[in-house]
Amino acid sequence: MLSSLVKVLKIMRIYLLLPALLLSFLLYGSDGYELWLNYQLIENQEIRDEYASAFSFIVADTDEAVVGTAVAELQKGFSGLLGATVDVGPTRGKKNGIYLGLRGQSARIDEYLKLNEVPEVGPEGYHLAFHNGDVLVLAEAAKGLLYGTFDLLRTLQQQVPLAALKRTERPAYTHRILNHWDNLDGTVERGYAGFSIWNWHQLPGFIDQRYIDYARANASIGINGTVVTNVNANALVFRDDYLDKAAALADVFRPYGIKLYLTARFSSPMELGGLATADPLDPEVIAWWKAKVAEIYRRIPDFGGFLVKANSEGQPGPREYGRSHAEGANLLADALAPHGGLVMWRAFVYTDKEGGDRFKEAYDEFTPLDGTFRDNVLVQIKNGPIDFQPREPVSPLFAAMPQTPLLLELQITKEYLGQGTHLVGLANMYEEILETDLHPQEDGGKVRQLVAGIAGVSNIGTARNWTGNLFGQADWYAVGRLSWSPELNAKQIFKEWAGLTFGRQETVVNTVNQMLTLSYPACVNYMTPLGLHHIMATGHHYGPGPWVNDLGRADWNPYYYHGATADSIGFDRTQSGNDALGQYPPAYARQFRDPTTCPPEFLLWFHRLPWDYPLASGNTLWRELALRYQQGVEQVAEIQTLWASLEPYIDAGRFHHVRQHLNIQYQEAQWWRDACLAYFSHASGRQLPPGVPAPAETLERYRAISHPYAPGIRPQW
Amino acid sequence: MLSSLVKVLKIMRIYLLLPALLLSFLLYGSDGYELWLNYQLIENQEIRDEYASAFSFIVADTDEAVVGTAVAELQKGFSGLLGATVDVGPTRGKKNGIYLGLRGQSARIDEYLKLNEVPEVGPEGYHLAFHNGDVLVLAEAAKGLLYGTFDLLRTLQQQVPLAALKRTERPAYTHRILNHWDNLDGTVERGYAGFSIWNWHQLPGFIDQRYIDYARANASIGINGTVVTNVNANALVFRDDYLDKAAALADVFRPYGIKLYLTARFSSPMELGGLATADPLDPEVIAWWKAKVAEIYRRIPDFGGFLVKANSEGQPGPREYGRSHAEGANLLADALAPHGGLVMWRAFVYTDKEGGDRFKEAYDEFTPLDGTFRDNVLVQIKNGPIDFQPREPVSPLFAAMPQTPLLLELQITKEYLGQGTHLVGLANMYEEILETDLHPQEDGGKVRQLVAGIAGVSNIGTARNWTGNLFGQADWYAVGRLSWSPELNAKQIFKEWAGLTFGRQETVVNTVNQMLTLSYPACVNYMTPLGLHHIMATGHHYGPGPWVNDLGRADWNPYYYHGATADSIGFDRTQSGNDALGQYPPAYARQFRDPTTCPPEFLLWFHRLPWDYPLASGNTLWRELALRYQQGVEQVAEIQTLWASLEPYIDAGRFHHVRQHLNIQYQEAQWWRDACLAYFSHASGRQLPPGVPAPAETLERYRAISHPYAPGIRPQW
Repeated sequence: MLSSLVKVLKIMRIYLLLPALLLSFLLYGSDGYELWLNYQLIENQEIRDEYASAFSFIVADTDEAVVGTAVAELQKGFSGLLGATVDVGPTRGKKNGIYLGLRGQSARIDEYLKLNEVPEVGPEGYHLAFHNGDVLVLAEAAKGLLYGTFDLLRTLQQQVPLAALKRTERPAYTHRILNHWDNLDGTVERGYAGFSIWNWHQLPGFIDQRYIDYARANASIGINGTVVTNVNANALVFRDDYLDKAAALADVFRPYGIKLYLTARFSSPMELGGLATADPLDPEVIAWWKAKVAEIYRRIPDFGGFLVKANSEGQPGPREYGRSHAEGANLLADALAPHGGLVMWRAFVYTDKEGGDRFKEAYDEFTPLDGTFRDNVLVQIKNGPIDFQPREPVSPLFAAMPQTPLLLELQITKEYLGQGTHLVGLANMYEEILETDLHPQEDGGKVRQLVAGIAGVSNIGTARNWTGNLFGQADWYAVGRLSWSPELNAKQIFKEWAGLTFGRQETVVNTVNQMLTLSYPACVNYMTPLGLHHIMATGHHYGPGPWVNDLGRADWNPYYYHGATADSIGFDRTQSGNDALGQYPPAYARQFRDPTTCPPEFLLWFHRLPWDYPLASGNTLWRELALRYQQGVEQVAEIQTLWASLEPYIDAGRFHHVRQHLNIQYQEAQWWRDACLAYFSHASGRQLPPGVPAPAETLERYRAISHPYAPGIRPQW
Repeated sequence: MLSSLVKVLKIMRIYLLLPALLLSFLLYGSDGYELWLNYQLIENQEIRDEYASAFSFIVADTDEAVVGTAVAELQKGFSGLLGATVDVGPTRGKKNGIYLGLRGQSARIDEYLKLNEVPEVGPEGYHLAFHNGDVLVLAEAAKGLLYGTFDLLRTLQQQVPLAALKRTERPAYTHRILNHWDNLDGTVERGYAGFSIWNWHQLPGFIDQRYIDYARANASIGINGTVVTNVNANALVFRDDYLDKAAALADVFRPYGIKLYLTARFSSPMELGGLATADPLDPEVIAWWKAKVAEIYRRIPDFGGFLVKANSEGQPGPREYGRSHAEGANLLADALAPHGGLVMWRAFVYTDKEGGDRFKEAYDEFTPLDGTFRDNVLVQIKNGPIDFQPREPVSPLFAAMPQTPLLLELQITKEYLGQGTHLVGLANMYEEILETDLHPQEDGGKVRQLVAGIAGVSNIGTARNWTGNLFGQADWYAVGRLSWSPELNAKQIFKEWAGLTFGRQETVVNTVNQMLTLSYPACVNYMTPLGLHHIMATGHHYGPGPWVNDLGRADWNPYYYHGATADSIGFDRTQSGNDALGQYPPAYARQFRDPTTCPPEFLLWFHRLPWDYPLASGNTLWRELALRYQQGVEQVAEIQTLWASLEPYIDAGRFHHVRQHLNIQYQEAQWWRDACLAYFSHASGRQLPPGVPAPAETLERYRAISHPYAPGIRPQW
């Protein structure tokens, strides 16, 4: 077959190729696998010609592996976007090309940089320019050339005229990391896109093409590290055969500038090493970790380091030995330091013993430790003080550890946000978090200014389109882009993603942006309006469960977080209550102290109020609550209508996929509204206001719903 | 985008289209998703022209859904194979087309059938012919047109000249069924291709394109039923919401002529219905099943029926109440009969109590029941008496229940045959089983003549190529084809599959056939030569474990099945032993009674022999055993070499995929050889013969290997 194919190719001319590619797209449709790296042929002949003339060849000044990656990606991109092959190396008779070059490598590059006053870009930044008919991708290190290349391709996908090309980029953060809560048995905790993409069993012998495309996708949005194992960790990953497997993944990721990290189970010296203790001050424990880390670096010379969840939800940790989190983190940090590795120590602590309000726990435990961590420790803090709720106030810890580098942990997987089927554009939530100003009267108090990096809890699984829900791709994309440029706003990200994913037609880009923009407030409305939180069903967190109040520990119960009685609802976290608000800088906390100034979206986070409490909107609390639930449902209907309007523009595969999920979302938004209002109406003894339909079922029916096999938790046999 | 695409299409000519499609194939490579329905453009212009002239239009005489499916598949096939669209309905000015027609529908068809003496084809058969320039697909019922269509497309894929087209086909069996051991939580028992393709959680709202392509693939090879749930069953599937989900799958399968079946947990009336008993003679239990079955048929009017595993490996069943398997099966059969449903009752019984040799259990329990089952009960028997071993003698039950319709249960998933990574062409094994003649002195005694159908335990999962190991597709294909035509031999199936999957070039077809033909004996050699059986590691059955002898029950231990001592090895199942051989018809058993006439591949199944026992080959038993292990490894190396020779002919994606798996298979074949020979050499006190290398590791090292997360068993956290 190949030989005749070669003949066919030889007699083909470029004008044959172009419609061919378009056609193949039409025939095969899209299943979303290509993500935003959707190198569809540019239809506009003029733009294509302009690009083609500038891209006759590629010259790269360095032979580092990441640059090889960049060149290969350019070839792939051009083959798709321009329907043309582009040679590597200057080609006789062809005038213009792409130059990938490093500062200090040639007089010509240095002269250009000097003349154009290009600032230093650091180890990952780059300068991109159209200059004398050529395209320049310049950097100070090879990784910059990789990122510049992906930026260039994104620019071409968006069909920006070359003349406008001149910019210098460097990432805001050094740490741009994905966290996979993937277990060695292939399940994914809080995973809603199938199962783990890591086939540990067949590693290292079998390298799935997915691993490579995963690395490409992440590199394209600036992700430079990935933790491939679950924070609820398994010591087995440190066994020789598993380290060989991990090393095979690291080998795949390396040419894409991505470092591999592992989660470290604190009790590994006992489980794997046979020691009697995991006490961080025990000399044998110290020696075990040093030796283990050295073993890892023998296999993975650029190993990133450890992510650790300790003394939280049953995970072992230093507190068992009367040691602090800092002593635990420093144990690992000392083992990693000689090799350049990092420890990312999670502040999501949640002790086995019943305590008070979990809201206050991380702050209370960690602030005294500020300044006592080794230099190569980062403390990783979830965005909110509870647990990835649809909307949370930001964690007070971000403003409380000035001497410690902090990582912001964002959930990309939608544990509490509709899981596998709901369209919820998380960039809106991320923007709200990053822009929260904890020191409103000073400079530099925004969360994005207080952290040294972002760790996103992945929503990636074996689903063909990676994220199960097609629009989940936008959330992964957003975390990557924000890790590089945290000042980007949600609208910029939505539009960029829409254009790359569905094509750059204005109708499509604007409509997709409208859908995404509507979706986050919609979800908060139909799940947890006015600051309700943690009212999801038990365990899997799928669907509503505000009535649950029979679990072993008060703070495991949704009821604990709203405490609805006939009179009132909400959690008093002001001084008259548990004063969790006291953990925030006073200037920030001020607005929240008084229910009349507290933003209504955070009201029940901080206040316990009578059902008839009058809001600024003119509605009572009860009426506003009911109307917001209803509004959430109506917003989903609006999103459905917007998507339906795109049918002429979207391939059938993706269109139908999204439509089915939106139908489920609409049903489930109604379920949330009806179940919650049936319950709160019963609790408050109040009738639903006009405009809010009666629940479809009785409260008892909603309470009886069970989903033993909802995904994202341990499979049960 | 669409509008400009339409313009492009309008100005395109067919000669533009052809290289385009070829090219798109080159660019995208293949990931194996299309299976054998690989409608690649036919390169040979002459053949393409011949086909195109005969396929100007499609006329279908009936509007049944399965015929709609057939027409759509023809259009898809032509678009790929011919690069042309074909209209539906006679088209003015176009002379020749395809006629799909039913006997008795038109004088013209009936006249043709009479003149050509076409026999009756039954409800699923068809007649295919090239007649006066037209292609005729004729049948007596709509389903026949569907199967005829797929046969026609297979014919075109193989580029058979139309003039030769004239044949009548009808399936040998009414029951051609897949069994999925898929759990409601998405895991697959003995699944090595990822996880379950059924996304129960998102059903019925989300219909994955996979469900449709699954149905297409099965219909194309004649499969007409599928049991979507595990035989280790879960009563939850009978809950209202799960029945709605099952009904959505049945709706997908119906237009492809596939009936949906469910596994029935015998204790469902207790677990779901709240009854105090599941006694099959209890009136409440009888009423519960009748009502439940009626509920199912309200949702799924063509529901197929139940598959049941009862009183086996901990599953509940009638024996708990002192009732027989027949009383249990008849309970369900009576509930299903009014609706036309079937019970498939498994004879794989394996009691909780420690008994004697499991080899004899099914026969002892079931033969007394012959003749006592209702008409709509089939007894489903695993091919061998133990459990899907690499090679087993056939189950004696096949010759022992003349009054009961029997189903042959074959494992497609490779639990004991290398699981996800080994290439083992099972059609060889299937052929050996089907052709086994249990009544060698009479007619009609071959297993294929003794059964009423085939049930294949699926190897399908979420892997992009469906089966994980690409060559696993050949096993799925084989079970479908053999269910229709059990007299096909392995070579025919291998060559047919190779041509459809990789293209019909002779080198490719012959080489792939050679690989597959070598592979089954290779696997038996490197795992269980000379009739060794059940020596796999515990639980997951991944890798060797002949030394295991510490499990709670003698017959759970590999050691039980070979009992190697310093003197001898093997299981005496002759009259001097437990006389399991006595369960076979004497004429069949005769050859096995004497070790000098027993085929060497079954030797240790039936005999306990000294290590120095001389074989016909001239080798002692020990020497022969060692040499066969070595031969198995060498055969894998040969398969690797054969595949390497195909590199110029196979797209890079599939080539590399298979190469990686073959590398793993080679390593694991060595592991099997070395570990088993280290153990048997130790047990026998004998040295390895020349030509067999010393094991790479010590026996202790092999014994210490653990794989807690090997796939196919319950995930462990």
